[in-house]
Formats: sequence, structure tokens, C-alpha cells
Amino acid sequence: MNFNLNEAIEVLERTPLTLEYFLSGLSNRWLQSNEGEGTWNVSEVIDHLIEAEETNWMARIECILGEDENKHFPLFDRFSHLNKEQTKSIEGRVLEFKSIRAQNIAKLQLLIDPEEHLELSGIHPEFGSVKLRELLSTWVVHDLTHISQIVRVMSKSYGEDVGPWKEYLSILKK
Amino acid sequence: MNFNLNEAIEVLERTPLTLEYFLSGLSNRWLQSNEGEGTWNVSEVIDHLIEAEETNWMARIECILGEDENKHFPLFDRFSHLNKEQTKSIEGRVLEFKSIRAQNIAKLQLLIDPEEHLELSGIHPEFGSVKLRELLSTWVVHDLTHISQIVRVMSKSYGEDVGPWKEYLSILKK
Repeated sequence: MNFNLNEAIEVLERTPLTLEYFLSGLSNRWLQSNEGEGTWNVSEVIDHLIEAEETNWMARIECILGEDENKHFPLFDRFSHLNKEQTKSIEGRVLEFKSIRAQNIAKLQLLIDPEEHLELSGIHPEFGSVKLRELLSTWVVHDLTHISQIVRVMSKSYGEDVGPWKEYLSILKK
Repeated sequence: MNFNLNEAIEVLERTPLTLEYFLSGLSNRWLQSNEGEGTWNVSEVIDHLIEAEETNWMARIECILGEDENKHFPLFDRFSHLNKEQTKSIEGRVLEFKSIRAQNIAKLQLLIDPEEHLELSGIHPEFGSVKLRELLSTWVVHDLTHISQIVRVMSKSYGEDVGPWKEYLSILKK
């Protein structure tokens, strides 16, 4: 098996701090631009990460580890954060993400014994049976996906400004 | 015009600190994995960023702004860092990047008057005439490209571990 809980936590604990250093104090033009209608700006990506911390990952992990025999995951709306009004600054949002992520990592370390629990499973609404280690791996890759999305969205603000270099910069074509 | 020097510097000054927080202390498995033969691992991406700070961006900016009438950019080998032996830790490498980037930003602020210089141009070996503002925009997007590459390379370490979620995680297909 390739998955390793400690290595996974290394990434999970770095994501909020990394985003804090990258995004705090950035001009609104970087934070508010998106990739066109129906796409997320940087602030909305952070809102999505907060939402997932609140309603997705831990609920699923607790479903797998809990005593209830019903192992169907509780439902999770990937777009619900878009209905919330954005009143907080980016710094406030990242701090919120940082705080709830820290709590979730602490719970994770308390709940999971990697020798015993990683092969336990729950029922995903589309995929059917999935293992705890697959869910945890997905949490890590989900973080990386959204860091990637943030830098891609930002880079597109300069999509035309780079002039002929556009040809070399594949991030602008995604 | 969309490009703004202060906004560009906001990103240029955040990249090293962001990478420092993200990469310091990470396990070797995250740092040494790559996307297959002939592709870069995370450490090699940092080496490339250092190399570009040393030999590319400032040399071209100084060529555009200097008094020499020859405006052909000095040559730059995008792969030369691969011939250097990697002896430094990732923390040492990121610190090196941070230090040379800070010096380059200080020079930039000293050399460039955005009211006067942004439309000046130099001769790129492939593209021909390019403007200073295009070069500076490219420097920013180049940073974002390599942050994106780092998280993509890392995510592929868990390409199989995510199980059926692979379908939803487009970063794994790039």
C-alpha cells in the first residue's frame, strides 16, 4: 500500500498555512477574477474548502468508523457555499479554514488507528463501497486540486498580458 | 492596460514564502516523486526557479533597460539545473530561492519606473520584439505555473490511492 497517514497529514496541515501566506494582503483584482461565467474566484474556492471541512470529510470518516450499521455517507452539496453571502475578508476566510482544519486533524489523529482502520469502508452515493484510505487520499488530492485551481485562476488574469509567451505557458490553456 | 507592476510584485514576493511553508519538512516521498521518466520532481522545480532568477529574468530586464543598443536577450538554458548535483535539502533550496528573489525584487523596484519603462522592448530569440510589461507578466505566470506543477506532481503520488474518486479529480489526468 502506498498511502501513509502521517504523510497525508503532512499535506493536510500545510494547506491552510500555505494559502494564508499566499493570499493574505493580495489585491482584490487577484482575488475576485474568475475563469468566466459559472466559475469560481479565489475567495469562492476558500469557501468551498471551508464547507468541505464542515460537512464532508469528517462526516464521512465518522460514518465509516462509527457504530451505526448504516454506512451510507451523509449527503454533501458541493455548491452550497455559493448561496452564502461573502462578507468576510480573504484573511478572515483563510483563518476560518485554518481553524476548522486544525480541529479536524486533531480528531483524525484521535480517531484513526492506521494499523486497524484504513481498510474499513463506507457507501458512497455514486461509487458504492469505498475504503477509509481512499477517502483520506482523496482529501489530500482535493487540497492539491484547489491550490492548483487558485493559481490557474490567478494566472488567467494575465492571460493576454504575457503576449507571445502564451504559447509556452500551458496553465493559460486549461 | 491590465498589467500593474505593484500587483505583479505582490505575487513575485509571495511565491518563495508560500513554497517555504508548503515544502519545508515534507517527507522525501512527496519531494522525490515525479510524473515519469524525463519529468521533474519538486526539488528539481525549485532548482529551475533558482536558475531562472540567476540567469533569465533580470538579465532580460537589464537588457531592455540598459544603454546597449543591442537588445537581443542573452541566452538561457531551461534545463541547465538538471546537470547540477542536488546536494542541498529542500529547505536550503527554498531559502536560496527566497534570497535571490528578494534581491531581484529590490532591483526591480529600483530600476523600473512604470510610467516610463513598461512599453520598452527587447528581442526574444524566437518571438522577436517583446515589451517589458509582457516579460514581467510572464515572470508572474511562470511562478504560478510552477506552483501548479508542484501540486500536480505531488497529487500523482496518490493517483491510484484515491480509488474511484479518480474520476472527479482532473488534476490526476493532466
